[in-house]
Parts: sequence; structure tokens; C-alpha cells
Amino acid sequence: MKELGVGIIGFGTVGAGVAQCLLENGDVIARRDGVKLVLKRVADLDITTDRGVKIPDGVLTTNAMEAIEECDIIVELVGGTTIAKTFILEALKRGKPVVTANKALLAKYGEEIFAAAEKTGADVYYEASVGGGIPIIKSLREGFAGNRIRRMYGILNGTCNYILTRMERTGEDFDVVLKDAQKLGYAEANPSLDIDGFDTAHKTAILASLAYGKWFGMDPVYVEGITNVSMNDIRCAASLGYKVKLLAIIKQDAETGKLEIRVHPTLIPVNSMLASVSDVFNAVRVDGDYVGNTLFYGRGAGREATASAVVGDIVDVALNLTDGARQRVPSYNKANLFTELVPMKEIETRCYLRFTVADKPGVLAKITNILATADISISSLIQNETKDEDFATLVMMTHKAKEADIKNAIAEIEKLDDVTSNIKMIRIEDI
Amino acid sequence: MKELGVGIIGFGTVGAGVAQCLLENGDVIARRDGVKLVLKRVADLDITTDRGVKIPDGVLTTNAMEAIEECDIIVELVGGTTIAKTFILEALKRGKPVVTANKALLAKYGEEIFAAAEKTGADVYYEASVGGGIPIIKSLREGFAGNRIRRMYGILNGTCNYILTRMERTGEDFDVVLKDAQKLGYAEANPSLDIDGFDTAHKTAILASLAYGKWFGMDPVYVEGITNVSMNDIRCAASLGYKVKLLAIIKQDAETGKLEIRVHPTLIPVNSMLASVSDVFNAVRVDGDYVGNTLFYGRGAGREATASAVVGDIVDVALNLTDGARQRVPSYNKANLFTELVPMKEIETRCYLRFTVADKPGVLAKITNILATADISISSLIQNETKDEDFATLVMMTHKAKEADIKNAIAEIEKLDDVTSNIKMIRIEDI
Repeated sequence: MKELGVGIIGFGTVGAGVAQCLLENGDVIARRDGVKLVLKRVADLDITTDRGVKIPDGVLTTNAMEAIEECDIIVELVGGTTIAKTFILEALKRGKPVVTANKALLAKYGEEIFAAAEKTGADVYYEASVGGGIPIIKSLREGFAGNRIRRMYGILNGTCNYILTRMERTGEDFDVVLKDAQKLGYAEANPSLDIDGFDTAHKTAILASLAYGKWFGMDPVYVEGITNVSMNDIRCAASLGYKVKLLAIIKQDAETGKLEIRVHPTLIPVNSMLASVSDVFNAVRVDGDYVGNTLFYGRGAGREATASAVVGDIVDVALNLTDGARQRVPSYNKANLFTELVPMKEIETRCYLRFTVADKPGVLAKITNILATADISISSLIQNETKDEDFATLVMMTHKAKEADIKNAIAEIEKLDDVTSNIKMIRIEDI
Repeated sequence: MKELGVGIIGFGTVGAGVAQCLLENGDVIARRDGVKLVLKRVADLDITTDRGVKIPDGVLTTNAMEAIEECDIIVELVGGTTIAKTFILEALKRGKPVVTANKALLAKYGEEIFAAAEKTGADVYYEASVGGGIPIIKSLREGFAGNRIRRMYGILNGTCNYILTRMERTGEDFDVVLKDAQKLGYAEANPSLDIDGFDTAHKTAILASLAYGKWFGMDPVYVEGITNVSMNDIRCAASLGYKVKLLAIIKQDAETGKLEIRVHPTLIPVNSMLASVSDVFNAVRVDGDYVGNTLFYGRGAGREATASAVVGDIVDVALNLTDGARQRVPSYNKANLFTELVPMKEIETRCYLRFTVADKPGVLAKITNILATADISISSLIQNETKDEDFATLVMMTHKAKEADIKNAIAEIEKLDDVTSNIKMIRIEDI
């Protein structure tokens, strides 16, 4: 049986999980796939802290270049966009395949990395960068190879989904839940990357790039986080039959080939499968022209689930090596399967609007007039009394309208004396 | 760009879908994966009936051997277990890779076919044999390569799921819904393969074989169809918070390594994701020791969805050919990752029991005594009046008990004068 040496750079949570998986299940892999994966090097600046896994003697090193020089397959789990990039490029320069979970790095420097890989014919695999343990990248670029992708919806960030699910269940406010999530280890001390939507956006950029054959990076991705989603909105949405999720939306118009890529809080019908994705779980819905609607669900993060994806990639890369297949599936493709990107102001969307208005005659008339003038039609409307008897809460769901028209109408309405300035707008997808 | 000739044998619904997909999306495949797939031969005894797809001149043939001789990749879509097997073996003998959707053939003759493939190093891919368009086989044997599989649950037959979903929604009886499903083309004129559970069992055997490294065939699969599921049971289950699904269950005890493989109507909690899989859709839940819980959902049948899976396989096989990789991922593995199969009578399961009993004192006492003596404990109980005032319906949910003990207790209870003979027993999985 062919033996291949695996070098892990970055002995953090995921690194430790990958090492453990290789040590525990290496025999299963050998028996199933006929390749023996030997954990040869684990590199980290800190090799003394206990990570809950016993690494064989002589494997730990503080010198990442040792791992790169000595191993057949290089696993980059350092994270970040600086030294991680250097390690990857050094490995690729030597023609050595790389497995990484680094979505931020790929979103930012994907093209440079893939170009380096192409030069030497080395593989770059990155299943763990999107959707944790869910084999979504493999399914998308291999399983759905025969499809034009029409639409993808993703719940891609466990932290945000945990916060929104818990608000929905307990009625606690965003700040309270966030603090608790930090205590539980579900949110970072600096939670911005998650709650401001950037982590989801990195993953969205990668999915869109794979489906439409251009490495998009972050520029074309519209991003809005969940910090403005209030308990009030979650409650109003529920009463209308919707849940609020931070949703990655990638949509192509089949006629024109125009593409939308965006990440924002979104109202989705409570009976849709995506709406039942709770807590730290992730899910991706993929619609292809042949396969129709599909959904993939699983743990989006965590030591074991991420390790599963990384090890799946290691096996793939190992089989390529033993078979002499180089770049068997292109790291990414330049198929260019779209015409142009739709600027955010031109997208068409239904939306949820929440106003706090003075409880006196004529206010509703003024608001609905402005909307009518902007050609925005209302599909449902609820007006509730507030604790303060001078004010009322007004919630509307609109039919599809152009984003720019909605935004202009909101600006007009905000100018009204009887409307408090904080109008909430959340887009709707009728999945 | 490398060109490869594809030969389709069997120009039925799926064959036509595959031809259409290759013709329509061949350019997308070429741009993404750098391989040009040419539809070179489509063989069928009937090459005159219109299948809604325009096959290029000179491609249609009535001679399957022509397709096998002239093409690089052979797609078997004849179905059945006789001539289809001959075609596959003829292709493999010539070292030509085969893509098939034929679950019945694989379940029955898998070992013979895989041995023939191994001999010449040719690939056999069969994604479309389980779960239609869902890339479940790829995910299982590639994406989850690092995992020991602990459990799989599958809704694998669209016909059964359509019937059960519709009974649940409309309250119509099984026979009525079946007849309508036949009219709509969702069920065959002879529906036995579907409603008696054999189709699901074929697919279950394939999934279990891939996960546990032994080609099981049909023998170890316990099979029970849905013909005995009555509207009454669906209603009672609903009132208890459960839905009835025809479920494939593959379970390994992590401690002992013992394996259960079974297919039967099953009560699952209404709030589980599998319970929300409706109509002709399929879904598979896979639990791995690293990846945790995952779920895959999509169309389990139909021309386009099945074509998606077949074409995904064709691309895989094509990339293997252009890279000179032979049996890169083994057609199946002999990893033997279990200790022994649990005979049905020894499985432990919760179950739902429905009795029609005489509405007089002491009946419940007699029944519960028999259950208590057999060490079967009751978790919930509902007694309802029936239209006939002499009889009552008694519905119980039990805690876990051994199948043989449950069956014996039922036999004892059936002997009671006050119990009509038709006691309904449906197993429960608290997914």
C-alpha cells in the first residue's frame, strides 16, 4: 500500500481535530481507499499546550518549512491572510498539494494561489472553507458538473444562526444573546467577522466563484450583518409566517445570465427547509437546471466537523497523487458562466418594513401614498399598538420592487414628521 | 481539449434526459472541466419514438454493441438484471468505464460486476442508483472518507413518500392515493417494487455496502412496505407528534460494531428535518463520527434529476480517463467495517401499537399485563371511542424493547377475546 506523509501547519482547534482524525481513522481510510496516510509533521509556534490529542514523538515541530519540505501533502490551518499565504505558496512552488480551510485567504488571494497551483500542477483543495463538514464544494463542482446553477441560498455562519435561533426561541435581545454566545465559545471576543456578515461573505464569494467560473473575491458581494435585527423584527416576522436568517443569496437570471451575490438578514417562510436549520448548523440550498432543488445540511464549524472536511480533501489529494492525476478537478474554473453582476440598487426584492409612527389620523395615508408613487405595492400590513399610547408599530410586506426605489421611498417616509427615523427594512426571499 | 465519446444504452426517460443534458450543457462541462464529451451513440431497440430530444444524425442505433465498441464511456440505462448486466460486463471486459443507475442490478450482481471492473481497472460509477440527483454516494465515499459512519436514515422512494405525504395532507386512503399516483405517473402499473419496499431496499443495500465495506446484496436487508399503513395510523401518529415515513435505517453500535440494515414504515418526530421531506423528494441523513449529523435532500427520481447524477458520473469518469487514473476511488471497498449483522428479531426499537378492543372493563388491564410481563414499558397511551360504540381504539407508544419480545406480546394479546386480530405495529425512530 502506498504511503503518503501529511504535514499539518497550525496546531489550533481544527489542526488538532485533523491530527486526531488521521490517527484514529487512518486505518479505515487505508482499508477503504488503499492509501496509508502518515501524520508526519505538525507545525506550530506553540507545541507545548495540550490540545487533547497525543501526537506521536518526533512529529511536532516549530518549523513550518520542515513540514513543507518533508511531507507529501500540506495542510494549512494557520488562518489569516499573511503567513498562511506564504506557506501555501511555498508548498505549491514545490509541486506539493495543499489542503486548506482558509476562506478569508481564498476570498482575497484565490487567484494568486490558484495560478501558483496551476504552474506546478499541484492541487489546492478547500472543502472545509465553506459549510464546515458539509461536502458542498465537492457536490457543487463534481456532483453537479452537468448543471447550470440557477440559485444558491446558504446559512453559512454558525454564530449568526445560533444568535438568531436563540433570540427566536427565548425572546432575548441581540446584545444579551451575543454576550452569552461569547461565554459559550460560539462567538469570538471580537465578533465582527461573524455578526457583520464578512465570514458568510467570504464563503458566498467562494460558492459563487465555483458555480459561475470567475474568482470574484469580496468586491461584488453585498454584505449586511445581523446587528440591526431586533427581537421586535423576529416577533413581527413570526406573526407573518417568516423567520429571519442571515442568508447568502446567489441568483442567476436564466434569461439574461445576470448574477446577484449578496449576504443580508432575510425573511424566509417558516415552512421552508432552510427555516428549520437551527443553532450552529449550516445549510446550503443549490438549484441546478437539471438536478432541481437540493439541500445540504450539517455542522458548519467545530473541531470534528471541520476535520472531517479537511481529511476528505486529504484523501482526495492522496488518491490524485497515487494515481499521478494532477489538477484532476481544476482548483477553480474560468468558465465565465454569467453575463454581468447586478448592482445592489438594481436588484428586485420583496421586503419587510417596520415603522414606528405617531398614532394619529393620516399617517398611514401619507406612508402608503409615498409607496404608491414609487410603484411599491403592499402585500400585507399589520398595525399594533405600542406600550406608549402615542405611537403605533406598522409592519408591511411589499411585493417585488427595485431596491433603489424602496430605499428612496424609505428616505421620503423618514422625512415625515409623524414617523420616527428608524425605519427597519429586511429583504424577503420566498424560498 | 481532450474529446471523449459517450455511448448511452437505453433510450428511455433517463436515457433521453442524459442525452439532452450532454447536448445542452456539454459546453458548460467543457469550460469548467476541460473535457469535451461527445454524444456518440444512443442505442435502443426502439429508435423511432419521439423522446423530446433531438439526437444528432447517425448517433441512434439499435445495436448496443456498437455503442460499447465505439465509445470511451458506456452509460447503461436499460434497467433490469439480465441484458443490462451483459452490456456492462462487455464494456468492462474491454476496459471501458461504465456509468449506471441500475440499483436492482447492483444490489443483486454488484460483486460480479465490481470484480470484472477490477480485472481491467475500469471504473463503475453509480451515483444515480440512490437518491436520484442527490450526490449521496460521492459524499459518502469521498467527502466522508475520514469518518466511520454511525447511522444513516433515508427516504429513498419517491412513490412511497408521495403516497404517505398525500394521505397525511388529504386524509384519503392508501388505495385511493395509489390509484391516483398511478394516473399521475408517480407510481407504476405494477407498483410492488415501490410500495412493497424493494426499491428502497436495493438502495439501502448499496448505501450500507459503501459505508461498511462489504457488498451486502439484498439478503441482510429486512423489508416491509407501506401497504399496511392506514389513514388511521397516520392520524394517530400525527396526534402523537409523529409522521409515518418509509425509512431506510442503517445503524451501527459504536461499541460492538454490530450493524442493522432495515426498511420499514417508521414513525419519526414531526419536527425532525426528515419529517419535512414531502412528495416525491428524497433525503438521506448520514451521521459520521467526525462530521456529526448531516442531511442531503433533493429529487429522488425523474428524467432531469437522474440525468444530473448520471452526467456527474460521466464527468468523473472522463476526468479519470484523461488523467490516466484507473479505479481512483474503488467501485466499492472491502474494508469490512462491522462485526456482525443483527437479526431482525434481536433489534431494539420503540414502537407504536394500535389495537381495536371491546369497550368493556378489564381489557386494558389484560393488555398492559401482557406487556409488563414481556418487560415492555409504555411511554404514552391514547384511547379513543370508535363509531361503533362497542369498540374502542387503543394506541400505545412503547419504550425501547426487543423486537422478538414485542412480536410475542402482540401474539399473546391477539389471543385475547376482547381484542380484534388486526393489531398494528409500526416502529419508531426518535431521530
